[in-house]
Amino acid sequence: MNAKEIEKLLGDVKNGGTTVDDALLILKNFPYTDLGFARIDHHREMRTGYPEIIYCAGKSVEQVREIFRVMAEKESNVMGTRATEEMYESVKSISPEAVFYPMARIISLQKKKPLTPETRIAIISAGTSDMPVAEEAAITAELLGNNVLRIYDAGVAGIHRLVDKLPEIRNCRVIVVIAGMEGALASVVGGLVDKPVIAVPTSVGYGANFGGISALLAMLTSCSTGVTVVNIDNGFGAGFAASMINKIV
Amino acid sequence: MNAKEIEKLLGDVKNGGTTVDDALLILKNFPYTDLGFARIDHHREMRTGYPEIIYCAGKSVEQVREIFRVMAEKESNVMGTRATEEMYESVKSISPEAVFYPMARIISLQKKKPLTPETRIAIISAGTSDMPVAEEAAITAELLGNNVLRIYDAGVAGIHRLVDKLPEIRNCRVIVVIAGMEGALASVVGGLVDKPVIAVPTSVGYGANFGGISALLAMLTSCSTGVTVVNIDNGFGAGFAASMINKIV
Amino acid sequence: MNAKEIEKLLGDVKNGGTTVDDALLILKNFPYTDLGFARIDHHREMRTGYPEIIYCAGKSVEQVREIFRVMAEKESNVMGTRATEEMYESVKSISPEAVFYPMARIISLQKKKPLTPETRIAIISAGTSDMPVAEEAAITAELLGNNVLRIYDAGVAGIHRLVDKLPEIRNCRVIVVIAGMEGALASVVGGLVDKPVIAVPTSVGYGANFGGISALLAMLTSCSTGVTVVNIDNGFGAGFAASMINKIV
Amino acid sequence: MNAKEIEKLLGDVKNGGTTVDDALLILKNFPYTDLGFARIDHHREMRTGYPEIIYCAGKSVEQVREIFRVMAEKESNVMGTRATEEMYESVKSISPEAVFYPMARIISLQKKKPLTPETRIAIISAGTSDMPVAEEAAITAELLGNNVLRIYDAGVAGIHRLVDKLPEIRNCRVIVVIAGMEGALASVVGGLVDKPVIAVPTSVGYGANFGGISALLAMLTSCSTGVTVVNIDNGFGAGFAASMINKIV
Amino acid sequence: MNAKEIEKLLGDVKNGGTTVDDALLILKNFPYTDLGFARIDHHREMRTGYPEIIYCAGKSVEQVREIFRVMAEKESNVMGTRATEEMYESVKSISPEAVFYPMARIISLQKKKPLTPETRIAIISAGTSDMPVAEEAAITAELLGNNVLRIYDAGVAGIHRLVDKLPEIRNCRVIVVIAGMEGALASVVGGLVDKPVIAVPTSVGYGANFGGISALLAMLTSCSTGVTVVNIDNGFGAGFAASMINKIV
Amino acid sequence: MNAKEIEKLLGDVKNGGTTVDDALLILKNFPYTDLGFARIDHHREMRTGYPEIIYCAGKSVEQVREIFRVMAEKESNVMGTRATEEMYESVKSISPEAVFYPMARIISLQKKKPLTPETRIAIISAGTSDMPVAEEAAITAELLGNNVLRIYDAGVAGIHRLVDKLPEIRNCRVIVVIAGMEGALASVVGGLVDKPVIAVPTSVGYGANFGGISALLAMLTSCSTGVTVVNIDNGFGAGFAASMINKIV
Amino acid sequence: MNAKEIEKLLGDVKNGGTTVDDALLILKNFPYTDLGFARIDHHREMRTGYPEIIYCAGKSVEQVREIFRVMAEKESNVMGTRATEEMYESVKSISPEAVFYPMARIISLQKKKPLTPETRIAIISAGTSDMPVAEEAAITAELLGNNVLRIYDAGVAGIHRLVDKLPEIRNCRVIVVIAGMEGALASVVGGLVDKPVIAVPTSVGYGANFGGISALLAMLTSCSTGVTVVNIDNGFGAGFAASMINKIV
Amino acid sequence: MNAKEIEKLLGDVKNGGTTVDDALLILKNFPYTDLGFARIDHHREMRTGYPEIIYCAGKSVEQVREIFRVMAEKESNVMGTRATEEMYESVKSISPEAVFYPMARIISLQKKKPLTPETRIAIISAGTSDMPVAEEAAITAELLGNNVLRIYDAGVAGIHRLVDKLPEIRNCRVIVVIAGMEGALASVVGGLVDKPVIAVPTSVGYGANFGGISALLAMLTSCSTGVTVVNIDNGFGAGFAASMINKIV
Repeated sequence: MNAKEIEKLLGDVKNGGTTVDDALLILKNFPYTDLGFARIDHHREMRTGYPEIIYCAGKSVEQVREIFRVMAEKESNVMGTRATEEMYESVKSISPEAVFYPMARIISLQKKKPLTPETRIAIISAGTSDMPVAEEAAITAELLGNNVLRIYDAGVAGIHRLVDKLPEIRNCRVIVVIAGMEGALASVVGGLVDKPVIAVPTSVGYGANFGGISALLAMLTSCSTGVTVVNIDNGFGAGFAASMINKIV
Repeated sequence: MNAKEIEKLLGDVKNGGTTVDDALLILKNFPYTDLGFARIDHHREMRTGYPEIIYCAGKSVEQVREIFRVMAEKESNVMGTRATEEMYESVKSISPEAVFYPMARIISLQKKKPLTPETRIAIISAGTSDMPVAEEAAITAELLGNNVLRIYDAGVAGIHRLVDKLPEIRNCRVIVVIAGMEGALASVVGGLVDKPVIAVPTSVGYGANFGGISALLAMLTSCSTGVTVVNIDNGFGAGFAASMINKIV
Repeated sequence: MNAKEIEKLLGDVKNGGTTVDDALLILKNFPYTDLGFARIDHHREMRTGYPEIIYCAGKSVEQVREIFRVMAEKESNVMGTRATEEMYESVKSISPEAVFYPMARIISLQKKKPLTPETRIAIISAGTSDMPVAEEAAITAELLGNNVLRIYDAGVAGIHRLVDKLPEIRNCRVIVVIAGMEGALASVVGGLVDKPVIAVPTSVGYGANFGGISALLAMLTSCSTGVTVVNIDNGFGAGFAASMINKIV
Repeated sequence: MNAKEIEKLLGDVKNGGTTVDDALLILKNFPYTDLGFARIDHHREMRTGYPEIIYCAGKSVEQVREIFRVMAEKESNVMGTRATEEMYESVKSISPEAVFYPMARIISLQKKKPLTPETRIAIISAGTSDMPVAEEAAITAELLGNNVLRIYDAGVAGIHRLVDKLPEIRNCRVIVVIAGMEGALASVVGGLVDKPVIAVPTSVGYGANFGGISALLAMLTSCSTGVTVVNIDNGFGAGFAASMINKIV
Repeated sequence: MNAKEIEKLLGDVKNGGTTVDDALLILKNFPYTDLGFARIDHHREMRTGYPEIIYCAGKSVEQVREIFRVMAEKESNVMGTRATEEMYESVKSISPEAVFYPMARIISLQKKKPLTPETRIAIISAGTSDMPVAEEAAITAELLGNNVLRIYDAGVAGIHRLVDKLPEIRNCRVIVVIAGMEGALASVVGGLVDKPVIAVPTSVGYGANFGGISALLAMLTSCSTGVTVVNIDNGFGAGFAASMINKIV
Repeated sequence: MNAKEIEKLLGDVKNGGTTVDDALLILKNFPYTDLGFARIDHHREMRTGYPEIIYCAGKSVEQVREIFRVMAEKESNVMGTRATEEMYESVKSISPEAVFYPMARIISLQKKKPLTPETRIAIISAGTSDMPVAEEAAITAELLGNNVLRIYDAGVAGIHRLVDKLPEIRNCRVIVVIAGMEGALASVVGGLVDKPVIAVPTSVGYGANFGGISALLAMLTSCSTGVTVVNIDNGFGAGFAASMINKIV
Repeated sequence: MNAKEIEKLLGDVKNGGTTVDDALLILKNFPYTDLGFARIDHHREMRTGYPEIIYCAGKSVEQVREIFRVMAEKESNVMGTRATEEMYESVKSISPEAVFYPMARIISLQKKKPLTPETRIAIISAGTSDMPVAEEAAITAELLGNNVLRIYDAGVAGIHRLVDKLPEIRNCRVIVVIAGMEGALASVVGGLVDKPVIAVPTSVGYGANFGGISALLAMLTSCSTGVTVVNIDNGFGAGFAASMINKIV
Repeated sequence: MNAKEIEKLLGDVKNGGTTVDDALLILKNFPYTDLGFARIDHHREMRTGYPEIIYCAGKSVEQVREIFRVMAEKESNVMGTRATEEMYESVKSISPEAVFYPMARIISLQKKKPLTPETRIAIISAGTSDMPVAEEAAITAELLGNNVLRIYDAGVAGIHRLVDKLPEIRNCRVIVVIAGMEGALASVVGGLVDKPVIAVPTSVGYGANFGGISALLAMLTSCSTGVTVVNIDNGFGAGFAASMINKIV
């Protein structure tokens, strides 16, 4: 039941086309009108440029293509995460302007570029193997309309790159830190900067890494305050949350 | 925003006291009106005799007494689970008619007895140590308006008690099975009767029991179909769900 | 030792063909006669139309085909879950009337349609990726003789579909909720309806989902009373238990 | 080695009091000068009013009092979390102006009130038992200089309170959601508002709750994007991170 | 339904007091007669001297005393494990001949000593802290009628005691190995002797011991064949199983 | 250092070829002489017919063939577990008399049949999918020289087969119970028979089965005394331990 | 069987008091002579000054006192870890020269001071709450004869103390790093120094710390090479291993 | 900012090319100069012959080849772990002198052989299946400039090989013990030798091995003091830490 229908119902009540009791009955049968949701979606679209993001994993190629087709018809920007090359080929066959980011595994169909603030999001990753997750975060943030400062491979071997860029990092509005193994980078960065840090544990590692649990627990128990955490390998979620913070007005 | 208020709003629209646009604005600001919830609560109360049950654990004695006081004022039946003797004494000081079931750890304040169908709920427990959980299930079911068949201590030592009562058990509408350790009783009962079985793992045991995990996992992976499971030691949840099934019309 | 044999034994006792002592010895040597099981099976078949369901996973194609062949010879309906296309082809080669439900992974051989009550089972799933589990529940319920209301993809993106159908859902006798990730849908539905809810956690998700553990724990600890839980991805178990409840007389 | 000392060293190099080689040697021996840290601390203090927060758990009463004494001497605001009544009494004996928030378990010694923006932080908790964690978050945010909108007990029983306040919540800049059990509230709130949500799992619950793991996993795998998570029961961390976001300029 | 009742029923059939059909109905209503169980219990008592063992943990002092009273009346030997001093005092007040083994936490009421074979059970424990579990195993085995060879504190510090006694150990019929920490003693003993080894992990240790999990997993994955495992701290179970093996004829 | 070498050393001491001090030095440098081990191996071979069993998993085809070749040269019986068809083909190319048991995944090279007592080992499995583990136990026991009573598929669907064979089972000396899922069969059998039960949890199942953990924990916490447990899927270990018990003299 | 006895046996062989066959028999009956162990103990005592260390936890006050008494009689140094004040009082009543280190929970009875090399062991801890574990490591190392450099409270708040002391740390021979929470300090130190680092996770923290698991996993998966790990809270083990490395010649 | 640049800056300060204030500003903007790291790297290279080791897993073939190319240009030795045959072929195409160790999965490009002390590292593994991890440790240690004593397959079947080599093992400076299953070998070796033992749990095993957790926990809780542990399957880390200890001067 949308706003239009409720407006019509209220009009009917006003002009006597519906009794108060009947209107009450109708409203009681729809305790959760979708008014609110529509409004949210509208808000979301205005600010991010995307009404909804498709999680492609676990969907068939056909399902992904169909969802892209239906959503594209509504003139909206569309974005799909955890997509495969094969899904992209299928989407491209109906929407030739679709773009694929292979490392980030994202399909994008962008008809109107979202507003982009001047402030930046720093995305810092520990190792080369963390790059797919880092790129998922970075591409997500960029597609949602953000400028991104990428600092990759800033672990033990490359921490001087992090140090060299500290002034630049401190000028960013929010920082995403991506690390597997023991995930210490989140605590280190959290101790050096005075900005919100979103930590993404990755499943990079082996043995007692347990598919990312070691990094996840380390980040959750970080003694650096201001660090919050998303799911293992969830670059998209981190990019999305960082975008929310970066776009705060 | 409750039914009365919406009715008044619709009346105002009808008689011109409010414009359609203003009414729409008000409704849009409350996308989740509490109409539905009130209705649910009303339904629940009519059928179970209890509008809401208080989970007392983690609440202070004062908080429990205050909630009982406020709820009792509305002329409702009130019930509190995981209550202590001390909480009961405090509640009784303001509501002398309150009753305490020490083994079940339930405080009850029942002003109107709920309707009780003739069908029964069987509550079967494996060992003496499971009795507190079994009693929580049994008292919950009785207070909600059900007749209960109790069969306790039906584990290895007493399974003949179970067998002796099989015909009686088979005449019940729904069965609650409560067991700690390896929780095998749920599978055994599930294989003998053709009724819905709600299994309650208990934290009774030690070592590889891990606070009830062994029984929980065993019940979840039971090869007897028709078995569903609630949380460890959750006698209340099992009694409530069993009551729902027993009262199906 | 079946009913016939016992009847004969009693007859022999009566007509002196067997002494009381010998009969007692025979009965004592078979403390667990299969009388009871046969009766159960008979009951089960009368009500569900299926004497036993085959869990095909872990069995070879040959084993599945043989079990179907043997059971089909007894004029019974037969049903196999977690079946593959290859298993179906093999079964079809000997029972051409066998039907395969590829998404539900169920092979069905139905010679007499089970009695079907007018009440319905609602099956609600959170996301597109949960569909195989949802279909396993739905097809199971239908083959056992139930009318099913399917509401799929009712997660964040499609919760308005759930809301639109709330009145219809509330008219169902029992509700199956299927969700992966954080499994919140079970609590949300459990809070909106006054019917037994059977929650099925799915392994859909990644990282801290741990193959369905996050949804499983969330559902077990749901603060909505009346929710019971089955094993991860166990659509069959949920459909079976829901059928039991729906067929309560 | 602080800024003053380096300035002196550079002056010595300039006026010939130290050779370039000796200065280089000194600097190489202190590869991590504390310049940067001091600057951070300074920044932090300017913005939050607190140079550092004391985690009192695991410290003796004497240790806590001494740390308060030393820090108070430097004319700074001081704040201690996870403090006991006994610790507070000891601190008060030397700093009579110290304040204790018993539910939040925070000791505060505030000499200059931090700057407080007009935007607000919403702090929403699911149940009465979650209040200590919620208060830790709220008091932390307030002491750091933020206006807080408290919405407590907004679980199943009180979700209408949440709904009634949705417009107010949507006007907040960042939202903290605190819940134990299955932690579904984070997903529900995350789906209704377009603001960063910081989720705090609590150890409230029993059995398969496993000391907060169920809520933690549910929040980490939330299908509502924009949700980030802190450690179980970490109200302080959530309040601190929310303050960082609320104070973004 | 016991043997006597069945005998009477058969007699009634024979003499016409009951029709064959009625007798069949009665027998069908008791598919699981307790004949079998009675026989087992009888067998067990003959061989072990104990019809059933009481697990006292989780039972109240009153419950324990009552169970002892009821069982003692039947002239049986009675034994209770995981008992407290207080439980013993209560039992002794009604059965002055009751004996308490404080380290083993066992209450025994033994009226007829069980037959005891000449072969022995070796009970080897790793450390002083494992003694309560070792004694539970040893006293259990002795009360059930076995000769026990105790070798305690045979860990790193005392392995020469083990070595000195190897010939004696090799003459035992079955060996119980009790160890906490990393549980390596089970593998070491299993590699030195050619007898069945029953390993009991104990919860002795800290940290990564996780309440006995480290020893449990080590024993389950022991590369010494012939090692089987019981629950953490389950000295009783090991003593009972060892007694079964020692008494094989 | 073997018995021969020590004998020679002692001879040298006697005839003055070696001084007492030198001999002492040599002996001190070999605190763990392999005397003991050789004796054990010899004992083992005499009784089981196999000096050592090869765990083939994780070894290359070449490694397995070489170990068989070397061991076969010493005229011993040889047996390899967890072997593949490919390993067998390679072994057969050098030892044409080698036999492969595909379901049990065992390669056997048996030149002298071990002594076989008349007593039997019962091997009972719950479902068709547990057969590979059951066969590993059965073939192991048979190759080591035991008569085996196989009772497969004795779960919910076929428990009457178990009941029919109870007298036969009770005549066995030791019982191996193999079950996945909730592993309840071990408790059921343990409650019905008065013989040592070795329980083997299998990884058969899905979801909350967690690769066999549910069955493992259930078996470890079984309330039927006399049950001991081996590693998940460890049919070999159970067969070996059962053989040890069956061959006790 | 010790060196003296073997020497005598060899002498007997030499002078004909024992035949070669009898001596062989005696030696074969003690396959694991304690020669080797005695030698180890002797070596250990010479280098560490302690023949064996008593783990007091889980022992009674009487047991601890007796072990001290027996060991002290042999003129050895004695040391007990995880001791309580009460245990110390009891030991002191018989050995007045015993010393207690309350924070380290160590009782020491040192009659001859062990040799102490000039090289040092650095012991670095993250927070005030880690001090008991750090002191256990430090006192252990000192009692075994090592010079210790203590750097405590070097976490986020005090990392400048670590930096100030880097040159001193780099001059140590081995470094012990003690940290709870996310345990990042081990990786940070491991990346800054080129010395063996022994990491001790502590149980300090809450929630997702899980009693030290987060720090344990983080340290095990540290991307800084050269880091090895001991059990949670095992300060003694770290001090002992560090002493071994520091005393390498 | 490297030493050269700081030297130049100090020179500029001295000759007036830069003011003290400007120099201070520059230094404050680089609180973490890479001076320290460069020095560490230099030290590391001098002693180990390798400036940094490449973890190849999770990197593409192209990434590995490029890193080798860039590092090789700097005239350094280069080493890559967890490498595949394919990666090696690609590296060899640009650096024909590269060597591949297939079992250890290491690519080495060694232009100058590191200094190698005469002391040795013992590397002891339990079973044939542990060889890849053992070789990773051994090759790592050798490439870093150490002599290695390999003792493989020293488990139950081959422990006499261990015993035979005890004197040789005791002459090594540090010992690496590699074992899967229950990991008891680490405790056994730790109890026999008075040298630092680095234990490497491997993922060899099945069932309750849980991918190496059983061995990991057993090693962490080893009652043999002086044992430290690295990550599951981390042969490289053990070899590296052993090299550090072996090269202590």
